[in-house]
Amino acid sequence: MPVRDQIGRIDTTAVRHDAGRIRVALLGLGKVGTAVSRLAARSDIMGPIIDISGALVRDASQRPGACCPLTSDATTLFDSGPDVVVEVLGGTEPARQLVLAALERGIPVVTANKTLVAAHGEELLAAAERGDTALRYEAAVIAGVPFLGTLARRPLAGSIRRIEAVLNGTTNFVLSELEAGAADLCTALADAERRGFAEPDPSKDVSGTDAAEKLALLVRHLGTLAVATSDIPTTGIDGLTRLDLLRAIDFGGTLKPVAFADWSDGSLTAFVGPAFVPLTHPLSNLRGADNGIRVHGDHSPPVFFAGAGAGPDATAATILDDVVESVVPSDRPSAWRDRVGRRCCPAPLGRAPWFVRLQSIDRLPALDVADLFASYGVWMRRTSETDRRTVPSTTWLLTHPCPSASVQAALTALSSATGCRASCWPSLERDSD
Amino acid sequence: MPVRDQIGRIDTTAVRHDAGRIRVALLGLGKVGTAVSRLAARSDIMGPIIDISGALVRDASQRPGACCPLTSDATTLFDSGPDVVVEVLGGTEPARQLVLAALERGIPVVTANKTLVAAHGEELLAAAERGDTALRYEAAVIAGVPFLGTLARRPLAGSIRRIEAVLNGTTNFVLSELEAGAADLCTALADAERRGFAEPDPSKDVSGTDAAEKLALLVRHLGTLAVATSDIPTTGIDGLTRLDLLRAIDFGGTLKPVAFADWSDGSLTAFVGPAFVPLTHPLSNLRGADNGIRVHGDHSPPVFFAGAGAGPDATAATILDDVVESVVPSDRPSAWRDRVGRRCCPAPLGRAPWFVRLQSIDRLPALDVADLFASYGVWMRRTSETDRRTVPSTTWLLTHPCPSASVQAALTALSSATGCRASCWPSLERDSD
Repeated sequence: MPVRDQIGRIDTTAVRHDAGRIRVALLGLGKVGTAVSRLAARSDIMGPIIDISGALVRDASQRPGACCPLTSDATTLFDSGPDVVVEVLGGTEPARQLVLAALERGIPVVTANKTLVAAHGEELLAAAERGDTALRYEAAVIAGVPFLGTLARRPLAGSIRRIEAVLNGTTNFVLSELEAGAADLCTALADAERRGFAEPDPSKDVSGTDAAEKLALLVRHLGTLAVATSDIPTTGIDGLTRLDLLRAIDFGGTLKPVAFADWSDGSLTAFVGPAFVPLTHPLSNLRGADNGIRVHGDHSPPVFFAGAGAGPDATAATILDDVVESVVPSDRPSAWRDRVGRRCCPAPLGRAPWFVRLQSIDRLPALDVADLFASYGVWMRRTSETDRRTVPSTTWLLTHPCPSASVQAALTALSSATGCRASCWPSLERDSD
Repeated sequence: MPVRDQIGRIDTTAVRHDAGRIRVALLGLGKVGTAVSRLAARSDIMGPIIDISGALVRDASQRPGACCPLTSDATTLFDSGPDVVVEVLGGTEPARQLVLAALERGIPVVTANKTLVAAHGEELLAAAERGDTALRYEAAVIAGVPFLGTLARRPLAGSIRRIEAVLNGTTNFVLSELEAGAADLCTALADAERRGFAEPDPSKDVSGTDAAEKLALLVRHLGTLAVATSDIPTTGIDGLTRLDLLRAIDFGGTLKPVAFADWSDGSLTAFVGPAFVPLTHPLSNLRGADNGIRVHGDHSPPVFFAGAGAGPDATAATILDDVVESVVPSDRPSAWRDRVGRRCCPAPLGRAPWFVRLQSIDRLPALDVADLFASYGVWMRRTSETDRRTVPSTTWLLTHPCPSASVQAALTALSSATGCRASCWPSLERDSD
C-alpha cells in the first residue's frame, strides 16, 4: 500500500515505463480487438511490453491460428491473472456482466463501448469502487483524441458548463459529401460505406442515436447530471437536402451533425441533430469523418479538441494508451523522454508548395514567368493574374510542392532578369497532397 | 513509500481531491501571479483548497495589502515548507536558479515560462530527478489548453513525428485583423495592444522568437532532439501586407504565423514564420488570439488541440491544474465526479438563431413572410431571396436568436396561411453573439 497523506500525495519514486510487461485479456476479437492485438505485438513502440494473454470469443474452435490463446469461458480468462481487461465486444450484454465481474475482482477495465458506459456507467463505476480499481473509456467518445482523462484529472479545465460537438463521423462525412456535390443522402451514405466510414447498417448514425449516447456519457462524465440517451431531443440528418447545405453556405455557415449540451444554470439543455454552424466556429471546419468537441468552462476560455472519430487503428491506439495509464502511475507526466536529448540543428523546410509575391515585374509577360519557373522545375498551382498576356507590377503565385532550392533559384534568376523583388513563404500541405 | 511492482503499479487506494489543502509558494507576483492568487482564493471551485502561503517579490515593503505574506528571501520561502512552488517571474534569471533550488529540495515546481524551459529544460529536469520530484509546464506552450501532460503520459498518442501549429496569439490576431480590413501591420498591432493581446513591446512576437521558444520546447518534450531556439529558421510577420492576405484568400487559403517541425526521418526540419495554410487545414480557422496545434503521430491519425494562447486567467487556471496534478495522484481519471449523478431530463434548445426551410410557399410575397415572422418576435438575419417581391416555391431563412417557441408559432401560422411545409434546425451562436 502506498503511503499517502491527507490529500492523497504519494511519494514520487522514479518509475520507468520500459521496465516490465502488461498482461491484457481481451473480451471479444472483432475488428477493434484484432487491431489492439496487432498494435500490441509491435513491442518496440510503447514503453512497457503488452502481452495479449488471452481473448474471450463465442466459439474458440472456429478461430484456428488466432493471435493469442482463446477461450469461451470468462472465469478461466479472469483466473489467468491479467493486469488489465479490454472490452471490445460492443453493446450492453454480455459486455456489462463481464465488465462488472472483472471490476469486482479488482482488475482494471478499458473499454471504447459508448453504449455500455452511457447506459450503465454509474453501475460500472460503483463496481470499480468496490473492487478498488478503475474503469477507463477514453476511446468511447472521440476514438482517436485523448481528452476525457485530461479533463477528469484537471479540476479547472474540467469545470465544464457547455459542450458543442460533432460526435459522429459517418454523418459528418455524409453532409460534407452532400455539400461537395453528392446528389443526395443515399448516394453519400453509399460512398461512406464504400470508404469504410459507415457500417453496413448506419441507422444509429443517421438517426443521431450514436451521437446521443456519446453526449449522455459526456454530460455525466463532465457534469453531475445523469441523463438517459433516450431523453435527449434527437433529430436525424435524413431531412436534409443538398440545397439546404448550399443555402447554409450562402448564409456564411454550414450544416453539421451537432451534439449540444449546456448545464450552466443547473438544469440541462441538450439536443442532437443537424444544426447551422457559422464558418467562424471551429466545428465548421471538420472534414470527412473527423469529430471535434468545444468545451466551455467556468474559469477559462473554450478549448477545442478534434481528430479521428472512429476507425479500428485510432481506437486501438487509444485503448492501449488507456491500458498503460491503468497500470503505470503518471506522477511525472512532464519529464521528456530520454532525459538528455540528442543535440541537433534543424534544416529549413525542403519540399513544399510556396506562396510567392513578385514586385516591380512589369518588364516581363506572365507566360514567361511561368516558363522561367518551369525551367527550374517549379509549377504554378495558382496565380493572381487572370489576363495572362501582361503582368501588373505586383503579382502572387502559389506553386505545386517543389524543393526550396528550386524556387529560390527561380526567384534569383527572375530578379536578375527583371530587377523584381521577390518574397516567398512556405505553404502547409493540403491533406490530400 | 508506495508499494510498486516492476512496472511501477501502485495500489489504487481511493483518493478524494476535496480532502486537504495544498500550500503554494509563488515566485513573482505580476499579472499572472496575481491571477493565480485570485483564482486560488475561490476555494469552492477546485477539489483541494489551495493556500498561497507566500510570494517572493523584489521588495516586499513596496506591496502593502498584498494577498499573501511577501518575502524577498527565497530560502525563507522554501523553508516554510510549501507543497508546490509556482514560478511566474518570466525570463531565465533569477527564475532558473530559484527553480533549480526548489527542485533540488524535492519541491515540485509548476511554471508557464517557455523561455526558461526552452533554454534550460534539460538542466531543470535533471534537478527534478535528483530531488525526486516533478517539473510541470502545461501553460508554457498554449496557455489555456492542456495537451502536453496528456501526450507525455500516453505512449502511443505521444509518439509524434510532426507538429503544425500557431503558437503566438499576437501575430495570429494581427494577421486576422489585416485580413479583415486593418490598413497595415502597425495599425493591427496597435489594435492588438489596445485589446490586451499584445505587450507594449511585441518584438518577440513579431519576430517569431516567442513561437520559436515554444517550438524548441515542444520538439524536446515530444521527441528526443535538443534544439536551440536560435537554430530554428525564423521569419517575422513584418514583411506581410494586406494584399498578400487577400491573394491568399483568392488561392483558397490564408496566411498564418506557423510553427512547423518534422522529425519523421530522425533529422529535424523546422521553421517559424508566416505560411500559406489551405482553408481545409484546421489551423486556417483559428480566430483572433487563439492558438492551435496539430500533432501527427506514428500510430494514429492527427489530433488537433486549440484554445486561448495567452491571458492571465487562462494561464492561471492551467497553472493551478498543474498544481493539483503535482500533489494528487490521478490513477482514476475516468471516475466521474459525484458518483451517483442527479437524474435529469434535458430541455430542448430554447433561444437560438434558427435555420428554416419553407417549401411550397408560392402563395405569399417575401415581405409578408418577414412581417409574419416579426409579428411573432422572429427577425431575419439572412434570407435566400434577393428579389424581395416574390418568393419561389422553396426558400431558406436564418433568424436572429429567438425562443424556439416563437419560431415554432410563426411556422405554424405560416403553414396554416399558405399550406407550406416548414423545416427548422437550430444554429450555434457566433462567438460575438
